[in-house]
Amino acid sequence: MGGDEGAELVIPGAAEALTRRPDIRFKLFGEREIVEPLLDRYPKVRDASDFEHCEISVRMDDKPSQALRHGRRRSSMWRSIEAVKRGEADFALSAGNTGALMAMAKFCLRTTADIERPAIAALWPTLRGESVVLDVGATIGADAQQLFDFAVMGGAMARALFDLEKPTVGLLNIGVEEVKGLEQIREAGILLREANLPNIAYSGFVEGDDIGKGTVDVVVTEGFSGNIALKTAEGTAKQIATYLRSAMRRTLLARIGYIFARHAFDRLRDKMDPRRGNGGVFLGLNGIVIKSHGGTDPTGFATAVELGYSMVRNRLLEKINNDLSVYYQSVEPAVVEAGAA
Amino acid sequence: MGGDEGAELVIPGAAEALTRRPDIRFKLFGEREIVEPLLDRYPKVRDASDFEHCEISVRMDDKPSQALRHGRRRSSMWRSIEAVKRGEADFALSAGNTGALMAMAKFCLRTTADIERPAIAALWPTLRGESVVLDVGATIGADAQQLFDFAVMGGAMARALFDLEKPTVGLLNIGVEEVKGLEQIREAGILLREANLPNIAYSGFVEGDDIGKGTVDVVVTEGFSGNIALKTAEGTAKQIATYLRSAMRRTLLARIGYIFARHAFDRLRDKMDPRRGNGGVFLGLNGIVIKSHGGTDPTGFATAVELGYSMVRNRLLEKINNDLSVYYQSVEPAVVEAGAA
Repeated sequence: MGGDEGAELVIPGAAEALTRRPDIRFKLFGEREIVEPLLDRYPKVRDASDFEHCEISVRMDDKPSQALRHGRRRSSMWRSIEAVKRGEADFALSAGNTGALMAMAKFCLRTTADIERPAIAALWPTLRGESVVLDVGATIGADAQQLFDFAVMGGAMARALFDLEKPTVGLLNIGVEEVKGLEQIREAGILLREANLPNIAYSGFVEGDDIGKGTVDVVVTEGFSGNIALKTAEGTAKQIATYLRSAMRRTLLARIGYIFARHAFDRLRDKMDPRRGNGGVFLGLNGIVIKSHGGTDPTGFATAVELGYSMVRNRLLEKINNDLSVYYQSVEPAVVEAGAA
Repeated sequence: MGGDEGAELVIPGAAEALTRRPDIRFKLFGEREIVEPLLDRYPKVRDASDFEHCEISVRMDDKPSQALRHGRRRSSMWRSIEAVKRGEADFALSAGNTGALMAMAKFCLRTTADIERPAIAALWPTLRGESVVLDVGATIGADAQQLFDFAVMGGAMARALFDLEKPTVGLLNIGVEEVKGLEQIREAGILLREANLPNIAYSGFVEGDDIGKGTVDVVVTEGFSGNIALKTAEGTAKQIATYLRSAMRRTLLARIGYIFARHAFDRLRDKMDPRRGNGGVFLGLNGIVIKSHGGTDPTGFATAVELGYSMVRNRLLEKINNDLSVYYQSVEPAVVEAGAA
């Protein structure tokens, strides 16, 4: 029910995802008067879905606490998350209110053992393919142990999605020298180096321009700077697209050139398409919850559906829990030592 | 002497700046054996300069404390800043070690009355022209009062450079709703709203994608997220330029299209040229110090020279000091009140 378009986005998006992943089954939660007419228009989605009417929809401007108070147990958002908890769904996906979704997901699914705070991970297109960037806005600030946990979870996600055995992981900082940056980032670097984890290759500090280069497979940062980085990159991409459009329309020669090179421009547009990276993954919970951009279109929403599909197929949660338990069971003394140093 | 190329960057850059601003006089500080042969190659720079030999050059990998210990009073970096203090130069410009330059500038020039910590301001090309973004890396973290001071100083810089009477100012945050974000950013917003300053128009919170849009003339943030934003935008611009080049080379039709539209691409390249925004301005000191990118070319260095030239001509320091004293002399009680609320 959430996002700019609500079910008008979700049902067509589900239809598009079904064309590529016909084995998906949906559980749809929402208001009958809105969803039923859409299912009439998309009979294939109706055939692949169970629909459950919910009287309450979380509003985009609800505070997380309000959403929990009014929407717990009864709202479409809550019930989609609860379906994951009950094992009736493999993951939950919403285009709605991010803060409310995170609050409900934490309340309903609880964090994985050992994880203090969940993170939101984004897929970031890079010159080398894609990278996982986290946290992009679940919480503001993070201590060394939380950054360490983000690295482990992001590494597991990269393994699940990119078919890598040992993804490279970098800590986002404002200088590559060991001396620079926040104390907690330095400490997280020491923890990662000393833990010497079997499933991730810690590569040290990276800077903002390393994200787009694809210097590492996983970029770890706290949620404030991660969100600023994500939105700044989106803004820069839009800005350059605007420059490009205006340059190509400005003279007759440019227009002619544009016609010749149209396929090349189409390719470029595909590369820069923000819908390709749609889907913020909540990591650190006992279940997979994905936040779609509220302003995306059905194609973008289908991307988020397929992201969840891939992560379930590639057993993301199992990988995360395995990596965390390997660390927390065997390296506990080293953490204490590093903390005391 | 600093940067990737040292005097090989500075002297040709000075020559280029002179072609557009023939009334500039330079004071050059550096090692005689390196600078003298370059001045032979650039006689117009020699004619417009006084050169002073300095035995010590701050190295790019010196820590700020090392640089201060070894280079105080004797290094070319220190002596260029000292020339500003003595009134022998209107501003100091270096392509060297940023941390050392800031440490020396603080030590030699001292912060302006009322300012606790200086900031580095960058000019950011936007869809609407240019904006001032600060802090982009002088210090990590900032409290509400420091963010407030950044807003005042950034506003003065925008007035000096953009010919605006009352620039708009936004606080960088991860949501536009008043409830979101860090406590100190919310407090800075309250301070700015209540101060109701005559020379800046406070516009509330902005997000990462607002920077490139040019939503406000001045974007205020603490140095960690500001530096991440700046470098992430640089990385994204390079990434898209790489995509574009590769798309235009891929097919014969694209190559033909490129030839027709070449002037349009040249225009685009100019728009995206990182050299156009070169020059980080240290604000909050009793003198103007500018940091050029160490990896720029003579054109980029000349941009930084002309940036300093414009700020001196437009009496930046006077504007900053005036705006700060207007606030600190007359609105002091309001600050106390806001702090107690």
